[in-house]
Amino acid sequence: MADERVKQEAVATRPGNKRRRPRVVIVGGGFAGIHAASGLARLDVDATVVDRRNHHLFQPLLYQVATAVLSPADIAQPIRTILRQQKNAEVLMDEVVGIDAEARVVSLASGVRIEYDYLALATGATHSYFGHEEWAKQAPGLKTIEDAIEIRRRVLLAFELAERQMVERGWHPPLNFVVIGGGPTGVELAGAVSDIARHYMTHDFRHIQPDKARVCLLDGGHRILAAYPEDLSARAEATLKKLGVEVHTEAQVTGVGPGWVEANGERMEAVVTLWAAGVEASPLGKMLGAPPKVNLDERGCVLVNDRLNPPGLPEVFVLGDLAHVEQDGRQVPGVAQPAMQMGDFLGKAIAADLGGKPRPVFRYFDKGDMATIGRMSAVADVKWPFRAHMSGWPAWFTWVTVHIFFLIGFRNRLSVLANWMWTYFTFTRGARLITGDQRLPGWEEQTEAKRSDKGRAAD
Amino acid sequence: MADERVKQEAVATRPGNKRRRPRVVIVGGGFAGIHAASGLARLDVDATVVDRRNHHLFQPLLYQVATAVLSPADIAQPIRTILRQQKNAEVLMDEVVGIDAEARVVSLASGVRIEYDYLALATGATHSYFGHEEWAKQAPGLKTIEDAIEIRRRVLLAFELAERQMVERGWHPPLNFVVIGGGPTGVELAGAVSDIARHYMTHDFRHIQPDKARVCLLDGGHRILAAYPEDLSARAEATLKKLGVEVHTEAQVTGVGPGWVEANGERMEAVVTLWAAGVEASPLGKMLGAPPKVNLDERGCVLVNDRLNPPGLPEVFVLGDLAHVEQDGRQVPGVAQPAMQMGDFLGKAIAADLGGKPRPVFRYFDKGDMATIGRMSAVADVKWPFRAHMSGWPAWFTWVTVHIFFLIGFRNRLSVLANWMWTYFTFTRGARLITGDQRLPGWEEQTEAKRSDKGRAAD
Repeated sequence: MADERVKQEAVATRPGNKRRRPRVVIVGGGFAGIHAASGLARLDVDATVVDRRNHHLFQPLLYQVATAVLSPADIAQPIRTILRQQKNAEVLMDEVVGIDAEARVVSLASGVRIEYDYLALATGATHSYFGHEEWAKQAPGLKTIEDAIEIRRRVLLAFELAERQMVERGWHPPLNFVVIGGGPTGVELAGAVSDIARHYMTHDFRHIQPDKARVCLLDGGHRILAAYPEDLSARAEATLKKLGVEVHTEAQVTGVGPGWVEANGERMEAVVTLWAAGVEASPLGKMLGAPPKVNLDERGCVLVNDRLNPPGLPEVFVLGDLAHVEQDGRQVPGVAQPAMQMGDFLGKAIAADLGGKPRPVFRYFDKGDMATIGRMSAVADVKWPFRAHMSGWPAWFTWVTVHIFFLIGFRNRLSVLANWMWTYFTFTRGARLITGDQRLPGWEEQTEAKRSDKGRAAD
Repeated sequence: MADERVKQEAVATRPGNKRRRPRVVIVGGGFAGIHAASGLARLDVDATVVDRRNHHLFQPLLYQVATAVLSPADIAQPIRTILRQQKNAEVLMDEVVGIDAEARVVSLASGVRIEYDYLALATGATHSYFGHEEWAKQAPGLKTIEDAIEIRRRVLLAFELAERQMVERGWHPPLNFVVIGGGPTGVELAGAVSDIARHYMTHDFRHIQPDKARVCLLDGGHRILAAYPEDLSARAEATLKKLGVEVHTEAQVTGVGPGWVEANGERMEAVVTLWAAGVEASPLGKMLGAPPKVNLDERGCVLVNDRLNPPGLPEVFVLGDLAHVEQDGRQVPGVAQPAMQMGDFLGKAIAADLGGKPRPVFRYFDKGDMATIGRMSAVADVKWPFRAHMSGWPAWFTWVTVHIFFLIGFRNRLSVLANWMWTYFTFTRGARLITGDQRLPGWEEQTEAKRSDKGRAAD
């Protein structure tokens, strides 16, 4: 009875709600969430998409915002614009603060409570500092547009401060950029930063030599791109080295501070440190916690069955990076492709329910992986429509085609293509803006340290 | 002797400086500063451009960033990229903190001191709150990219919060947007915000009716666009009214607070308040202060003669919005055109000095003014190559052509044109991103006030 009253109240807060098509609440407007919502377009349900942000973000290109090739608007679209034609979907910009899986009610930060018949959690994952949250300030990660703008600010600012210091003192701290984490994001960031220094800045400065900048990529494992086949890892490493990136594997980061990174107990100078290591699931999984007990893996991902439900909660689906799905004895990776496929699966499962048929089983169809490495190079582990290990510019060309194809929103595709062509043919990066704070943590410290080293020669 | 030593030291801080071509220091990378630097390209001088920001901003289109049509990178370019081919120009991202006009030394925030032979001050102006700095938080003005992003955030967020509130309570505070100041920026902002509400949001929301939003434009004078001929003011007002903008002239703003604006003692609700009134010169003019005494007008602009020098300082030029130049008994206006022409004048004056000829006299050649009013309408007071008062879409078409032509950087022109075509033909705004803080000052206050008004009906 008490539960029934909770439900009634929840419904009562939705004005004009006439009973009653099943309501599907989708939390998160990433790849999984958008695909989940779109998959409901022709079903006799009402969908509510809840996201803290007003926009869907095309994550695979976020590193290009961080490295001044694209503008945020090129890779982001308002979620409600994407779903504008889908009349059975509403979008709420709000944050989920509680889930009552028994009463089937989701509570939002604003106080709104939404009763659901189906709940899809697709809030993804973010980077993890392995318990060292204090490193976040020194070494920003790349997950949101704000992150990308912050990284762009730091990278560009380092060159400006060095130029200024040359005028002031005739020397500057070495331009060392350190990228921590040798996964696709780390490899892409390292390659792009090296590109900036070696190709895009060369004519712009009068006192510094941007191509003398060092870019170091640190990875704790014994090879970068550990999820790729070994030959592609080796080719990626060779390409990075050709770009001038120093690749350090088996490098365990033990400290990050203003102006330095410590790996394997050894300290190296770092004007800018970028974090591309570690994955931690969104806390939404924990909210499903009790009762009944939902199991999370060590990253906080929700263990789900082959229909993407946590055991005992057939009306709850966990999609995308937040889901821990085992297939053929291996975990489905937390990248865009499986997220889209899991999103698509939601519609199929609910359609089966509505039609009174048994739900299908989710199966990830892996078309392969790819990562760019600087200007016009990439590695691709192609699994469909043929199997191949590609590298160099053929892989890069494939990467461009696939990413343009999957970019949501026709205008964005055009704009991204135009920006890419401009960037690659003219060696000019279009979005080289420094906004916000105009200091760099660690820069002053290094300058002061060096000043006492060098005595009063410059005074 | 003492002065001579100061000079020697200043030079000594510039490593590798061989005596000695005249050094021209240009402070500010706006229209005046960029034109000033470019005008020195073929002269036997060394130029240093100092700006706090790394980018030149195409100010006349900034309101389109604030209203989600363009991205910041579309209207901004790094100053050093603009000047990359000009080998006698260096760019320093730094802030001027002092000017010693007697010793001819400029001091920068980083500690760098630059001796100059010529100094060009072109640091422009910003909006002024007429002594009510406390209004700035409630009513942001539009001068920097950060300002534009903040305005965009507030405008877009208002609709999101209203939609959320409809779901929560079945009502929302009225969507009143108040623009204070009826100059070109105020008119352009008001028209663009009205466009967003009436054209670009209509299919995106399920619970609110964005076209029910009110946009009010307040001006203290007896007509908007006071610098334009009276017939164009009247046409602009008529066009705004057709767009649904309420135009209130003779409206003296006496207070601005969270969720409200008080004009002529009467309080009106305002979900978002934008400030487009008042001009205040950059504080650089004051630094010229003494000795000798330089005169400033009431806005802080430096009074200069017809060669753009403050009296008694022939080696100092004041350019752009910071300069108070009288011509034919009227003050040259603080807009882009005279700034560019003043910038160009610097090169001519210095060339005359180097050639041992008398300096020319500056004369502003006024080609006219224009301002857009929402979608495909504008007013233009054309003075060259023919004289005409234009309005409606012919004026708009002229506006587009002129602005594309003057946009610095070929890529930006292409990108802006593409974004405009996309926006105007598809009724979709490309840059509708909400980043940063996801609250709105005043929103909660209004909600709480209304909640007690309405009693417990919604509970």
